[in-house]
Amino acid sequence: MRGLFKATLSKLVVGALMVMGALGESALYGDEGMWLYTNPPIERIKSKYGFEPTRDWLDHVQRSSVRFNSGGSGSFVSADGLVMTNHHVASDALQKMGTKDKNYYRDGFYAKNHDQEVKCEATELNVLMSIEDVTAQVNGVVKEGMDQSQAAMARRGIINKLEDDSFRNSGLRSNVITLYQGGVYHLYRFKKYTDVRLVFAPEQQIAFYGGDPDNFEYPRYDLDVAFFRVYEDKKPAKVKHFLKWSKDGCKENELTFVSGHPGRTTRLATMEELAYSRDIGFPFLLKRLYRAEVLLTAFSARSEENARQAKETLFSIQNSRKARLGGQAGLMDPELIARKKAEEQRLRDAAAKKPEFAEALKAFENIAKAQKVRADLIKPYSMLEGGAAFNSELFGIARTLVRAATEKGKPSAEKLREFIDSNRESMELSLFSEEPIHNEFEILKLADSLTFFAEEMGLGNPLVQAALGGKSPQTRASELILGSKIAQVAERRKLYAGGTEAINASRDPLILLAKAVDAEARSLRKRMETEVQEVTSQANLKISKVRFSLDGTNTYPDATFTLRLSYGTVTGYEENGKKVPAFTTFAGLYERSAEQRNKPPFDLPELWQKRKEKINLKTPYNFVSTADIIGGNSGSPVINKGAEVVGLIFDGNIQSLVLDFAYSDKEARAVSVCSQAISEALTKVYDAPKLAQELATGKASH
Amino acid sequence: MRGLFKATLSKLVVGALMVMGALGESALYGDEGMWLYTNPPIERIKSKYGFEPTRDWLDHVQRSSVRFNSGGSGSFVSADGLVMTNHHVASDALQKMGTKDKNYYRDGFYAKNHDQEVKCEATELNVLMSIEDVTAQVNGVVKEGMDQSQAAMARRGIINKLEDDSFRNSGLRSNVITLYQGGVYHLYRFKKYTDVRLVFAPEQQIAFYGGDPDNFEYPRYDLDVAFFRVYEDKKPAKVKHFLKWSKDGCKENELTFVSGHPGRTTRLATMEELAYSRDIGFPFLLKRLYRAEVLLTAFSARSEENARQAKETLFSIQNSRKARLGGQAGLMDPELIARKKAEEQRLRDAAAKKPEFAEALKAFENIAKAQKVRADLIKPYSMLEGGAAFNSELFGIARTLVRAATEKGKPSAEKLREFIDSNRESMELSLFSEEPIHNEFEILKLADSLTFFAEEMGLGNPLVQAALGGKSPQTRASELILGSKIAQVAERRKLYAGGTEAINASRDPLILLAKAVDAEARSLRKRMETEVQEVTSQANLKISKVRFSLDGTNTYPDATFTLRLSYGTVTGYEENGKKVPAFTTFAGLYERSAEQRNKPPFDLPELWQKRKEKINLKTPYNFVSTADIIGGNSGSPVINKGAEVVGLIFDGNIQSLVLDFAYSDKEARAVSVCSQAISEALTKVYDAPKLAQELATGKASH
Repeated sequence: MRGLFKATLSKLVVGALMVMGALGESALYGDEGMWLYTNPPIERIKSKYGFEPTRDWLDHVQRSSVRFNSGGSGSFVSADGLVMTNHHVASDALQKMGTKDKNYYRDGFYAKNHDQEVKCEATELNVLMSIEDVTAQVNGVVKEGMDQSQAAMARRGIINKLEDDSFRNSGLRSNVITLYQGGVYHLYRFKKYTDVRLVFAPEQQIAFYGGDPDNFEYPRYDLDVAFFRVYEDKKPAKVKHFLKWSKDGCKENELTFVSGHPGRTTRLATMEELAYSRDIGFPFLLKRLYRAEVLLTAFSARSEENARQAKETLFSIQNSRKARLGGQAGLMDPELIARKKAEEQRLRDAAAKKPEFAEALKAFENIAKAQKVRADLIKPYSMLEGGAAFNSELFGIARTLVRAATEKGKPSAEKLREFIDSNRESMELSLFSEEPIHNEFEILKLADSLTFFAEEMGLGNPLVQAALGGKSPQTRASELILGSKIAQVAERRKLYAGGTEAINASRDPLILLAKAVDAEARSLRKRMETEVQEVTSQANLKISKVRFSLDGTNTYPDATFTLRLSYGTVTGYEENGKKVPAFTTFAGLYERSAEQRNKPPFDLPELWQKRKEKINLKTPYNFVSTADIIGGNSGSPVINKGAEVVGLIFDGNIQSLVLDFAYSDKEARAVSVCSQAISEALTKVYDAPKLAQELATGKASH
Repeated sequence: MRGLFKATLSKLVVGALMVMGALGESALYGDEGMWLYTNPPIERIKSKYGFEPTRDWLDHVQRSSVRFNSGGSGSFVSADGLVMTNHHVASDALQKMGTKDKNYYRDGFYAKNHDQEVKCEATELNVLMSIEDVTAQVNGVVKEGMDQSQAAMARRGIINKLEDDSFRNSGLRSNVITLYQGGVYHLYRFKKYTDVRLVFAPEQQIAFYGGDPDNFEYPRYDLDVAFFRVYEDKKPAKVKHFLKWSKDGCKENELTFVSGHPGRTTRLATMEELAYSRDIGFPFLLKRLYRAEVLLTAFSARSEENARQAKETLFSIQNSRKARLGGQAGLMDPELIARKKAEEQRLRDAAAKKPEFAEALKAFENIAKAQKVRADLIKPYSMLEGGAAFNSELFGIARTLVRAATEKGKPSAEKLREFIDSNRESMELSLFSEEPIHNEFEILKLADSLTFFAEEMGLGNPLVQAALGGKSPQTRASELILGSKIAQVAERRKLYAGGTEAINASRDPLILLAKAVDAEARSLRKRMETEVQEVTSQANLKISKVRFSLDGTNTYPDATFTLRLSYGTVTGYEENGKKVPAFTTFAGLYERSAEQRNKPPFDLPELWQKRKEKINLKTPYNFVSTADIIGGNSGSPVINKGAEVVGLIFDGNIQSLVLDFAYSDKEARAVSVCSQAISEALTKVYDAPKLAQELATGKASH
């Protein structure tokens, strides 16, 4: 989970992820589905598990679920506005609230009473209060004879109006959500909480126990939990809907539900798109990730200061690498691919039967052609526009300066999207950031990426020649970084303010380089956007109509960062002929630490060493289930049939990364913290019986 | 240095290194050259440095130089047979002599007197006593009208005779050495020492201080030294020639000499061969190394046991990766390439002028064509024959069993070379090794390499399909490893003894897989050997004649693991605009350790922590010079004009890795331990004043 929405995605992956999303299956498999609360698979659940969620049950769970604006999920767990989520969902907030004297992120925190609860700036929580189907209104404005752009404009108009009207009438944040690739439009109304205070967080060391080596792995031993409290009028908010706590947690083979906000799936991708990813996209991206990981690991090994400089980027690369490897493994699984193929055939067959779907058959061809263009473009595009040829902070700054000057005069519609007015503030924030830039690290990355550029495009390529300027990559990188003045923020401000004139007059070697490659970079971007993205998304719309005609809303739409309900069984799996059990225990945590001689990232926090005698070591700690989740689900509550919290989603195993493309329950598992483990840790380790009590009773005690 | 001859080369690199070696430059550059003792560049040294080595000087240094049969160089440093080399040259011997109670390799050793000196099994030292030019005799047997194979046979005959006669007459080990690609033949006579005993070694921790992160880097802080003593008739051997010790070491800008055994250079490679390496060979090999390094690093991070299993392979991969990156950087240096190009032009021009060299012009074309074939073959060759598709110990064993059965019946000349009689013993040793094989590690490597196979060759490739057998790479790898019985040595013995019949009857999944890909693997190997290696080596011979006609022996031949003399200046260099000083000191060692908080591999041995107060921290510790060295030079003495030891070669910096292709003094440097540092450490840290005394006086004291 961490990778998919928490750790900022490495710049490296942007190119590969950019173009995806299409059409697909309907034959549901096992406990598949990220279901809309308006359309849960009641019959499926009833027939398999003999349990039938009622409308009240669904409304209650929906309104107990919370979305973090920083990305991630959570839930109310007491009537007094107590919110549970992951430590890693809270990490932005924890890091921002830190001071010179107090490192909340690293050391954890517990507020013994409301007065000690610490306000988090810029944290906003949203609760989905109501859902209204507005498909008829939205589609009603599209009249016969309108061309595509008129239709789009009309749709945008009614959507804006629906949102404005709803906000005026309800006072609630209102958003029209596009589902099923435009088959359905829903109006969501959210209650917003902006006074959010930290109640409890454990040490990062135990929250992310095992660090990168154990990330996406199982068995696990992480207490990845944090508690906040929402306030209204400076008092703890009274909430009607919250999830009760299960002191017994869940058992093997038990049915559980997950309520949260899965971010993005591409389950509707066509076979051609999957083949592109498998044969071209993932291998090329992985090649870059491997290279970058080795470069940064070797650099980090040379000194602690190096390790500090590279740490964040390195973690993000490792995380992306694992995620991509997991996805690639899925794309090479013949069983899974056979399912995808059968589903595509179902759509093609249906399309072939009706003349009005002729366009959809053509759409498959268009997507196939677009994949060929994409395959041709991906290398130069990644190099020049994706920046793989110029992996350096300073080059990024130089490019922004060069482009900002050119874009300044353009009408909004013609601007590159990172330069439109609504993005200007964040662009300037990063452009003028005082974050230190380290020359040695910059030269290392730039020399390596110039070498990669020459290897991939050929030393004779004119742009390679221009980039190298007759020097070796090492010499050139050194000359570019040491010869540039834009490491100084004042220099950036001058060039930014001076616009085209200043840029044209500049002899700064990095500005000159950014200018030299800009025309080709822009042209590749334009081709990628028009010949691949646009073509694919228009084709998807057409195929989507066939699917919708077959299934209607009898299935779930691709994930859209909005609230969904998943369900699954608590159960282990088999890996390399060995049974991986569903549960770990606190005893396992101490064993893992001992077996690793308590070395980072397997070291135990001091408190956990001291309190070992007090803890019931048999307490279940982490568990896996077959629930259908993806990045964005981090922090989701896992509940039982009684809507009681039995766990807290915090990761998926490496095999779960295939869930991006298709559900599987063979080895893919969601990974959670057990509710009992949270209670036990609060009581025995953190001296927080009051908080444990609040969970148990659903009420804060004052 | 370590990588190039000490750490066993990763299997990965075999494919890329296999085919190389050709023709090249003569215009000498700076302090270039690995010179024959029969033909030192006296005029060049005299005119640049005002020093003229005499014949006596040369003979003395030659006979003070020692070659280790395990690979590596050394020198006599006392009249009583004391030999100095590197700890890492001694490491095989140190590891073999270890017992349950004594780890010589890790903990070091010092024999206070001769009685305590420990005999090393299977260690042999050779001293080159005389050199005789036998070119006329060798070429004399080749008569007009002989075809190529008759000529080769005649040459082989006279060489055998010369070696036999010499051994009978002198009692000395005698070898005819081919130099200048066959332009010159020398008869070398060696005095052989087989009773070799360990006198002193420091802790591995200080010998290889900084570990892999600092390998091939500078500044450095390594005490990479060990002392042996050769015995004759169970008494310390009396040697006439040994190098005196310089207590003052060398100074910045001083002229120094290096006498040792550089292993292999390919300075005569044509431009087409260099372009192949730069554009195809190195990028593809690096891609594999990066992938393998990440795989093993991530695996190692998960547990200490994993780290232990992967350690040796991982170090070898890291070492190869650094070496290849250094070489690639050189191939992208326009200055260096311009020099190589000019030299090739010189040869082409000369060839164009004389009709008898018409074949040489054609030879350049043939090499160019062979590079194209090589580029076409390298991927499938590496996958199938190089084993990149089946990275697993067990697959290697299965292949050996399958091939051993097929090869058994063949006449010697038709056998694959690893199966000819003289290689059988070592093949069987490794085939029946009881070294444990770890299933999880095997599955990990095999699943990853099957994925790589599918990515590189396409999932639709029939051999990929056959290898995967309709499964995903992960499932298939698990089934192959867990389903095979050849992890048991008894099973291997049975299949080996049973020959073709047993192999044909076997249902072992790995045997079946090895059989399924064998025909194609063999065919690729055959094509690589005949269409690339053979064509290139015949062409080289022809180009070689042109070069020899121009320069005769006015230059040095490519390195051949035989004794050479290099020279150079003690001087730092500039890197990324920063001056890297020539010398480090003991003070620097303590600073580096403090800056790294004494964490491995930057931790100081206990003794070094305790004795800090005693040590003169200003003592020069390591230094760099422009001497022309390569792998095999490890352990070479660095001497001054007075033939006194001022240092001990133990590594080259990363920029020196280009010396494989061409000499450079811009940033390429040889890295040595200072003689003063050795004396200081022996006296102040190791309580070995007697040994320090023996160095100072050239005599053992009893």
